[in-house]
Amino acid sequence: MPNFIKRIDHIALVVPDIEKALGFWQDALGMTLSHMEDVPSEESLVAFLPASESEVELVQPTTPDSGVARFLNKRGAGMHHICFEVYNIDETMAHLRAKGVRLINEIPEIGTGGKKIAFIHPESTNGVLVELYELSGNELDIRLDRARELADRMIKEGQSMATAVMDYVRGLAGGNGKSSQN
Amino acid sequence: MPNFIKRIDHIALVVPDIEKALGFWQDALGMTLSHMEDVPSEESLVAFLPASESEVELVQPTTPDSGVARFLNKRGAGMHHICFEVYNIDETMAHLRAKGVRLINEIPEIGTGGKKIAFIHPESTNGVLVELYELSGNELDIRLDRARELADRMIKEGQSMATAVMDYVRGLAGGNGKSSQN
Repeated sequence: MPNFIKRIDHIALVVPDIEKALGFWQDALGMTLSHMEDVPSEESLVAFLPASESEVELVQPTTPDSGVARFLNKRGAGMHHICFEVYNIDETMAHLRAKGVRLINEIPEIGTGGKKIAFIHPESTNGVLVELYELSGNELDIRLDRARELADRMIKEGQSMATAVMDYVRGLAGGNGKSSQN
Repeated sequence: MPNFIKRIDHIALVVPDIEKALGFWQDALGMTLSHMEDVPSEESLVAFLPASESEVELVQPTTPDSGVARFLNKRGAGMHHICFEVYNIDETMAHLRAKGVRLINEIPEIGTGGKKIAFIHPESTNGVLVELYELSGNELDIRLDRARELADRMIKEGQSMATAVMDYVRGLAGGNGKSSQN
């Protein structure tokens, strides 16, 4: 049996108001906001909050009729999807197809930095929207740059979270403890 | 700002039939079933599927009127809660309380092996049930034993997942790469 799953990349939560939601995730729970991104293709504003090798993503719709806006109207705020990093997305999708799993994307979409992503239909997963993602193109460099900026900012702010940030950088670099930050 | 969150410990998914659900998570997606546990206190059967330092937990109600059974009837199968490992659950809860966050448990419950757990009310989190968990008591030993059994089983079965299992053991040991398995 092949193992396709490397780690949980992120859990996406739909929120009506990202600033208010940060009052919980950032101010109360103490998570760090690594960055905020307007994603026009998803008609959403996304806040990224790293937790070791994974992230919590807060997603706020920026238009009234996107998929995320419809989810919010229909089901209310809450968990939207889980994204797993896979070793090889094409092999994973071929195997899923062979097992009769219904895919939303028949071929991977190409995201920021060249990464490949695809969604599995909740019909095949007991109601869970599952995203698969393969780190490819120059996305690792983008992520490492972002993590270094975050580390610099935190050290500058005199916070004692440098270790957590370094763990995060290591996670991004493949979870194997190798990192050019050392 | 203190950072209370160490990592995502698990994502719990409610399913009506755990064996059928394993057809996707185990057979199609290639995740490894580490173990299955009857949890009478939760009136549930739980399947644990490690993904690096986190786990996917499939939860099937074993009685018709437990909290999980009611969730399944009302909302259907899908994501139930996210559990974060925290460094110190008492400090985390005190800070949450000071920030006006509504807790389900006023003091931590003591789970298997002495671990401490507490839930945050979805009212304070935009509809997401959040569990906090502190590794304490002898739970680390229990987890390490379980991971070693899994590693032995996989090596015996001639599978090429030893590396993934070792990563998992390292994750359980604190995500710092130190492990008595090396």
